[in-house]
Amino acid sequence: MTLATRGPVRIVGTGLLGTSVGLALSTHGVDVVLHDPSRTALALARDVGAGRPARPDDAAPTLIVVAAPPDVTADVVRAELEAYPDAVVTDVASVKGYVLAELKAAGADLTRYVGSHPMAGRERSGPSAAVPDLFLGRPWVIADSGSSHPDAVLAVRSLAVDLGAVPVTMDADAHDAAVAAVSHVPQVAASLVAARLRGADDAALGLAGQGLRDVTRLAASDPALWTSILAANAAAVRDVLQDLRTDLDTVIDALGQLNFDGEAVAAAPGSGGPGGSN
Amino acid sequence: MTLATRGPVRIVGTGLLGTSVGLALSTHGVDVVLHDPSRTALALARDVGAGRPARPDDAAPTLIVVAAPPDVTADVVRAELEAYPDAVVTDVASVKGYVLAELKAAGADLTRYVGSHPMAGRERSGPSAAVPDLFLGRPWVIADSGSSHPDAVLAVRSLAVDLGAVPVTMDADAHDAAVAAVSHVPQVAASLVAARLRGADDAALGLAGQGLRDVTRLAASDPALWTSILAANAAAVRDVLQDLRTDLDTVIDALGQLNFDGEAVAAAPGSGGPGGSN
Repeated sequence: MTLATRGPVRIVGTGLLGTSVGLALSTHGVDVVLHDPSRTALALARDVGAGRPARPDDAAPTLIVVAAPPDVTADVVRAELEAYPDAVVTDVASVKGYVLAELKAAGADLTRYVGSHPMAGRERSGPSAAVPDLFLGRPWVIADSGSSHPDAVLAVRSLAVDLGAVPVTMDADAHDAAVAAVSHVPQVAASLVAARLRGADDAALGLAGQGLRDVTRLAASDPALWTSILAANAAAVRDVLQDLRTDLDTVIDALGQLNFDGEAVAAAPGSGGPGGSN
Repeated sequence: MTLATRGPVRIVGTGLLGTSVGLALSTHGVDVVLHDPSRTALALARDVGAGRPARPDDAAPTLIVVAAPPDVTADVVRAELEAYPDAVVTDVASVKGYVLAELKAAGADLTRYVGSHPMAGRERSGPSAAVPDLFLGRPWVIADSGSSHPDAVLAVRSLAVDLGAVPVTMDADAHDAAVAAVSHVPQVAASLVAARLRGADDAALGLAGQGLRDVTRLAASDPALWTSILAANAAAVRDVLQDLRTDLDTVIDALGQLNFDGEAVAAAPGSGGPGGSN
């Protein structure tokens, strides 16, 4: 373990990511203090071995990992920065620009904040889906606040390395544009294709193969989480979707012309053979 | 083997599907005669054990399987019906309405024609990708011409059963609408998402995970084959894509409103805390 994890590490939010971080650190003997507004989620994370609830006599944490839903992440990060004035605070939300903008607008101490985003996940959510090797070999984006203290950046990079991930430095906006293309838009596309199957009958669905399963697999993800992610990265996702719509219109127009030609061929006078028996 | 495969079976087109049918029948000891306009494809199919080229003294085939690209399938089926006036002819093209319409327009003998479509495939194409168990447990659509003789339908059903597939009876239009939704539109969606990655830089692509790989896997399929399939099923695919575009517009509009709200919150006067240090 590196300096990132010398003191107690506080994890706020014991869903899939927070609990997985806690499991991985606990496995290495780090003292992990867990917090979650849901007593059930907190108890479950403790029971699977991700850490322990806070005690009144706890030493102040040196590192705080906020693993809350994207729409409340900025508020939680700000509260943690204020409650623990010596701690480095990071978050693992899937969107970084929005969190940073809210923290700036709120006048938070950005020297101790470093955004991050481990590119790891599962279709299942919640503490019971957590696994300690979730981050192994995966990219972990480190998004400096622009004012982050170098020690704070180093602490968060070290956390990523300790968990087996590969740190990747990007600024918040570049990160958001990248995940829009490689993660958020594929998610929307999977859901759009899956939505077109709602009206299909059983005979039609019975013809589906691995191709459809692959294209739509992501559509099984947690809708509440994804609504929150897409809302937080709305501008970047919208840019890519608008380009995709332009391409889609081209395909639709091309099919319209092809169909017309096809029908013209099939219905053309003289195309019937002379020896037909029907 | 059933009555479908008592006499010699002639396979026209030794790509992935034709060669796989030949391999499966040959494995069961059926005499398979192969034909392909490409000498290379024909030699390759013979070499992998899918059957043998025609000989001048061959008995007339009882069953002919046309496994040609969709855009030439109707012409090939018509030629085979004329050349072998006692044979049952089926095709395995991914689109059925277009083939049937062309055969009707050409006055072909529809009593001996039964359309079919094994719901099996791979991203790789050509005889070298063929495997005898390609159809095992997969649905195999049997699309009666409307005038097909019951014995002809039975022959094609039996072929599907002999190859380990599950026969599914559908008319040509119902088939085309079904595959538009479960196969052709997912294919287009995979390609549209993949196309949006062309402009992405290496750092962005480095963040991609299994989700993107799954959504875009189909985009690696043979473009010439897919252009031909989409052209042949243009009307049905266009219907689904237009519905999908309506959904996409809804998502884009919703993101526009969410983004506006998000920016409004972040930039709202008074949302900055009084104790900010930046």
